[in-house]
Amino acid sequence: MKQYCFGIDVGGTTIKCGFFNTEGDLLDKWEIPTRTEDNGSKVLPDIAQTVKDKIEERGLTKDQIEGIGVDIPGPVTGKGEVNMAVNLHWGHVDIVSEMEKMTGIRTKAVNDANAAALGECWKGGGAGHKNLIMVTLGTGVGGGVVVEGKVIAGSGGAGGEIGHVHVTEEVTEPCNCGNTGCLEQVASATGIVRLAKMQLAKTPDKASILRGKTFSCKDVWDAVKAGDELADDVAEKFGDFLGRALAAFATVTDPEIFVIGGGVSKAGPIILDYVEKYYRKYAFSACKNATFALATLGNDAGMYGAAKLVL
Amino acid sequence: MKQYCFGIDVGGTTIKCGFFNTEGDLLDKWEIPTRTEDNGSKVLPDIAQTVKDKIEERGLTKDQIEGIGVDIPGPVTGKGEVNMAVNLHWGHVDIVSEMEKMTGIRTKAVNDANAAALGECWKGGGAGHKNLIMVTLGTGVGGGVVVEGKVIAGSGGAGGEIGHVHVTEEVTEPCNCGNTGCLEQVASATGIVRLAKMQLAKTPDKASILRGKTFSCKDVWDAVKAGDELADDVAEKFGDFLGRALAAFATVTDPEIFVIGGGVSKAGPIILDYVEKYYRKYAFSACKNATFALATLGNDAGMYGAAKLVL
Repeated sequence: MKQYCFGIDVGGTTIKCGFFNTEGDLLDKWEIPTRTEDNGSKVLPDIAQTVKDKIEERGLTKDQIEGIGVDIPGPVTGKGEVNMAVNLHWGHVDIVSEMEKMTGIRTKAVNDANAAALGECWKGGGAGHKNLIMVTLGTGVGGGVVVEGKVIAGSGGAGGEIGHVHVTEEVTEPCNCGNTGCLEQVASATGIVRLAKMQLAKTPDKASILRGKTFSCKDVWDAVKAGDELADDVAEKFGDFLGRALAAFATVTDPEIFVIGGGVSKAGPIILDYVEKYYRKYAFSACKNATFALATLGNDAGMYGAAKLVL
Repeated sequence: MKQYCFGIDVGGTTIKCGFFNTEGDLLDKWEIPTRTEDNGSKVLPDIAQTVKDKIEERGLTKDQIEGIGVDIPGPVTGKGEVNMAVNLHWGHVDIVSEMEKMTGIRTKAVNDANAAALGECWKGGGAGHKNLIMVTLGTGVGGGVVVEGKVIAGSGGAGGEIGHVHVTEEVTEPCNCGNTGCLEQVASATGIVRLAKMQLAKTPDKASILRGKTFSCKDVWDAVKAGDELADDVAEKFGDFLGRALAAFATVTDPEIFVIGGGVSKAGPIILDYVEKYYRKYAFSACKNATFALATLGNDAGMYGAAKLVL
């Protein structure tokens, strides 16, 4: 094992770069813009350049680098190939061979949500475990599934796309994916606001801090914390949908721990209370004792997971 | 790689033994009884003895044997340990170390449904694929999940226990597992009979071949094939429950193929029609093209999968 590695987390506007030692300490981090012009053809050369610059700045040679892990927002196959990544304006891109050609350093690639799962499993909320399911509750709902320390990419790169499990007939608007009734539509930040609006409409006589206002997901959780009964009903529904879905996933991989991250999770441990309650209700007996934790690495999780990929 | 291996499928009454070459050809198969007396303490010694006898009968030595794969009816951890196997009257048993001590041959162990999945993935309905989910529809509903050619044991041995995913509020009787509304309660042989009885009760004025009779799962499928409308409604419900559950699992591992086996699958390809219809309705776009096949190895699937485990 060499001394250092890179973890590169590619987003639609910014590329987060991490320089690690191979024990997993983050020694340096910085950002460069994501240049999506010309079908995103500048993205990988920009990464190769910033990696080479960092190696030179540190007075190192590429022979001291174990590898470069790259995660991107879109499906990535187990071999590190991308067939389409809308946010990067990419069609088919072979990340591994292009990066290796430009840098002479071994490269691996993975989907961003899967990288976050691997990062949290390595150094975050799931540290010390080898079997984990991570759920990222943000604008959408993403996920990543780690089995025996390795993330499941899936046959076409859709492993861990747990935001698109069908959970309800109550939502009839289409999801971004084209289906209706996806977990993402009731458990993302906008999904929780949707649930609250539905609950307000369904129980028009129930008083609530939220009634008559424009409110955000954070407002819903603040109302829950303030003891608002209607907001509590919303949290129960959210917990039922997510807890039930996680119980279904548990029958597939039997994880030791679920880690919940993303913007919604900033509401804190109260979220886990609602999710765990329903998870334990629906889970198969042998899976009921799985533990729950909040993610701890925040926006660095992808960088950590990308780095772990090459170790 | 040595020339031969054993695949041993341990059931509650019979142990099926297979002698394979390491290309995967089944050269010989036989059965011995499962002696569950004395807390099942005779099971592993009986297997060790029959293996040694076969090696001698063939004029071989143990150095020509690549390994012994053993599957058992109960949860097995990734390390081949069992904490409880009710049908064998076992408490904690370390299959691997006990078998290796008795035979001097490398041993691996796995749950029986997981072995069947691995067998079907290797030489059966899923041959040629590396990412598969198998569902066994028998007295119960079992399953096994193969990712990149390896079966997911799960942190406590409950990987692939997909019969116990919660799918309905309509069934209020408890499942064997203690929960209610499990997939097993509506998609096993008895589950399909239950669905038919529920449908008969729900639509008392609808004529049906099944009405007023005692009927089996096979009778339900025969009625479907004969064009019985009520039986068709039952098949649709079965397809909806199973197709929806498989679509949920697909978001976890993104398999290339689903293989359906067990006694219920003897009704033939008509089963796949109903399951695929609902799978494609609920599946995430990137997973919609997964294919479906019937299992082909029948009762030999476990033997094949156990053998594959050591190759």
